[in-house]
Amino acid sequence: VKRQPTELLKALVALIRRGLFEDFAAKAAKMEPADLGDVLASLDGTERVDVVRRLPPEVSSQALAEMPDEAHRGETLAALDPTEAAHIVEQLDDDDAADILGELEPAKQQEILAEVEDRPDVERLLRYDEETAGGLMTTHLVSVLVSDTVAGALESVRKQAEETEDFGNVFVVDGASRLMGVLSFKTLVVSDPDRRVEEVMEPPDVTVGPEEDQEEVARLMARYNVPSIPVVDADGRLLGRVTFDDVIDVVEAETTEDILRFGGVSAHEDLAASWGTAVKSRAPWVFVNLLTAFIASSVIVLFEDVLVRAVALAAYLPIVAGLGGNTGTQALAVTVRRLALRQIPVDQSVRVIRKEMAVGLTNGLLAGSAVAIVALATGQGPQLGLVVLMAMVGNLFLGSSVGALVPLLLNRLGVDPAIASSIFVTAFTDTCGFALLLGLSSWIIL
Amino acid sequence: VKRQPTELLKALVALIRRGLFEDFAAKAAKMEPADLGDVLASLDGTERVDVVRRLPPEVSSQALAEMPDEAHRGETLAALDPTEAAHIVEQLDDDDAADILGELEPAKQQEILAEVEDRPDVERLLRYDEETAGGLMTTHLVSVLVSDTVAGALESVRKQAEETEDFGNVFVVDGASRLMGVLSFKTLVVSDPDRRVEEVMEPPDVTVGPEEDQEEVARLMARYNVPSIPVVDADGRLLGRVTFDDVIDVVEAETTEDILRFGGVSAHEDLAASWGTAVKSRAPWVFVNLLTAFIASSVIVLFEDVLVRAVALAAYLPIVAGLGGNTGTQALAVTVRRLALRQIPVDQSVRVIRKEMAVGLTNGLLAGSAVAIVALATGQGPQLGLVVLMAMVGNLFLGSSVGALVPLLLNRLGVDPAIASSIFVTAFTDTCGFALLLGLSSWIIL
Repeated sequence: VKRQPTELLKALVALIRRGLFEDFAAKAAKMEPADLGDVLASLDGTERVDVVRRLPPEVSSQALAEMPDEAHRGETLAALDPTEAAHIVEQLDDDDAADILGELEPAKQQEILAEVEDRPDVERLLRYDEETAGGLMTTHLVSVLVSDTVAGALESVRKQAEETEDFGNVFVVDGASRLMGVLSFKTLVVSDPDRRVEEVMEPPDVTVGPEEDQEEVARLMARYNVPSIPVVDADGRLLGRVTFDDVIDVVEAETTEDILRFGGVSAHEDLAASWGTAVKSRAPWVFVNLLTAFIASSVIVLFEDVLVRAVALAAYLPIVAGLGGNTGTQALAVTVRRLALRQIPVDQSVRVIRKEMAVGLTNGLLAGSAVAIVALATGQGPQLGLVVLMAMVGNLFLGSSVGALVPLLLNRLGVDPAIASSIFVTAFTDTCGFALLLGLSSWIIL
Repeated sequence: VKRQPTELLKALVALIRRGLFEDFAAKAAKMEPADLGDVLASLDGTERVDVVRRLPPEVSSQALAEMPDEAHRGETLAALDPTEAAHIVEQLDDDDAADILGELEPAKQQEILAEVEDRPDVERLLRYDEETAGGLMTTHLVSVLVSDTVAGALESVRKQAEETEDFGNVFVVDGASRLMGVLSFKTLVVSDPDRRVEEVMEPPDVTVGPEEDQEEVARLMARYNVPSIPVVDADGRLLGRVTFDDVIDVVEAETTEDILRFGGVSAHEDLAASWGTAVKSRAPWVFVNLLTAFIASSVIVLFEDVLVRAVALAAYLPIVAGLGGNTGTQALAVTVRRLALRQIPVDQSVRVIRKEMAVGLTNGLLAGSAVAIVALATGQGPQLGLVVLMAMVGNLFLGSSVGALVPLLLNRLGVDPAIASSIFVTAFTDTCGFALLLGLSSWIIL
């Protein structure tokens, strides 16, 4: 098993900090790019630029491409002289080069590209939005002509292979570069060499346009179990391919977005951002939450006379509100995830909501009875017990209904259901919980 | 682009329900397994069993393997006669067969396996925990001898390829089946046919043992960009390989677990479970939450005399508590995700906590000032304004500190930080929020 222990990482960082750069460079030359990327991530900005500058470009370029934190990759490239940066870019695969350059200001990008020799592929990729198939794809692939024989195709693959890293499937095109089919290696090596490619190829079932959203590309790859998806233009011409390793990165990035949104953070907050940037990203959400909290608290103001006459109720406010929020968040998490995995079949939205309502009602009865028993046991009287039970059942029922309904509704409207943050559900259950407890009290007890 | 519109899915389901099975079967034979799996998922239990029984086993087996909802796959197989189920199992790849059989009771499993001919591979795979490398791997792979020539290896690959679907890399073993290296197709087709395999192969950098956790397997594949990872036993003998499509499924499953935990649902709740099962899975969390809510509410009981003398404070309770919970959940989401992506470099935990503290303090000052201004504007006096400001700053600071500290601490203790559900953070901020607001009031105002 190849794994880099924390101790080794610390030792490498120590070598750099003690000025023993030659010792470090000797080790770096033999390391996996991802491991070296972790070393870069552990350094501070000026140390990192210094290391990238002093390592050979063929080593530092790959380490930079594998560094986990995207914002720091761009910063590092921008801190180099344009010619130094160009040497790095020249060593990278076209998709990695476009990713890193895409993090820079357009002026800086142009300054570096002007020094880069012979990489029109990188400039072409930079034109696509980074969250689309075009932004993910590499233009480097192996293709053969549909009119060729299997023997001729194998010879052609052999020639192209020398210039292309790990190429997965072989694509079959016609004279106008239009995608006609896909050849697996298996087919290429087991087929009769005299047969024509046309006879043994598979139809290109799964293709995407360059503007296709990256999340959809990932879904198609997971669904159809293909190691690479061809990207074609409107006329069916082959532009590039998206490979499995990019798709795993996309799934990780989408997971980050979903968890951040669920936690009430802007989905595009850079995880490693400084505190100032993080405040800018989160403060709007804090103020949205402030607004919803004022709405909930206005219910308390409305029923202030009830509280004055029965201050013991105040202790039940956070219980009724909190458990409603908990149950609503549970329903929300389950429903958002079912939608993301496309696990809610045709016309079954009603069934999903009905299930969550039943769960909320049951848990409301269970937890409500427990709270009512505590109220009775502490001598607060059967009326208060009844009010607390009814408020709990009502709030947990409403919470679970809304937790399931809102994401389903957003999905039906074509909006990403993951924006239904738990913040809105808890705002709703706070408001309803206060209204139920205080309203029922003023009606039954007072 | 190949995609199955909802209309087509509905039309296929309608064909089955109108009894036009032959029309459906003709279409099914030409469909992708994943698309047919969606049709199965849209049917109810008895319809599904009927369709699986009537389609040819080579078609229904693949559709069943691709059906999105795991629990229903096992149920369907269990509802068939053992011989019918055995025909399905015989058609499946070893890893898919073991996955589906793994969902059945041991007795049912044995009953079916007794009817299955010649699949010792499936029985072997069933012995591994399904969340490990052994549970994910397939034993079907292509290997060549280290002592062979490139030409000999290519001939050997050609023979094995006829029996193996999509095989990715070629593994190089010695006479005792010990893994010695890996050969890409590229190397196989571009190398001089007379060279020895030993001279052109790559060392097997990334390998795992069969007991390795599936999440670690996914992390290694994403990190080192390899399309398949060999699984070896303690003596280095090659047991199987885990492929990229299984890893994408693992990443999806782990995302589900993380989002469920964050939402306070048991990570292993089946998303499509009936309401009864869902209640059983969630009720324990509801009672944990009930306990924490009682703790928070006991703070209110403790300060009941303060509330009696200044009932206006009650309206500020949900604001101070709610915003603290919001800020704590934000810090939690960001920190949990940074840990999952291993983006927190050596010895930087302190820096992470400091950043979140600074964010909490700043947002506390911003939101606290806004609430204090509202208190002043509604004529509630400068003392109440000051108390609210101080309580907000304190609670948002404590919330963000705990949101960052708890997952980092769990991680240091070797516990999965994702268990730090938002429920615990909001329980903490409710308690602190009430104590700060009521405590400061009794000290400053009354």
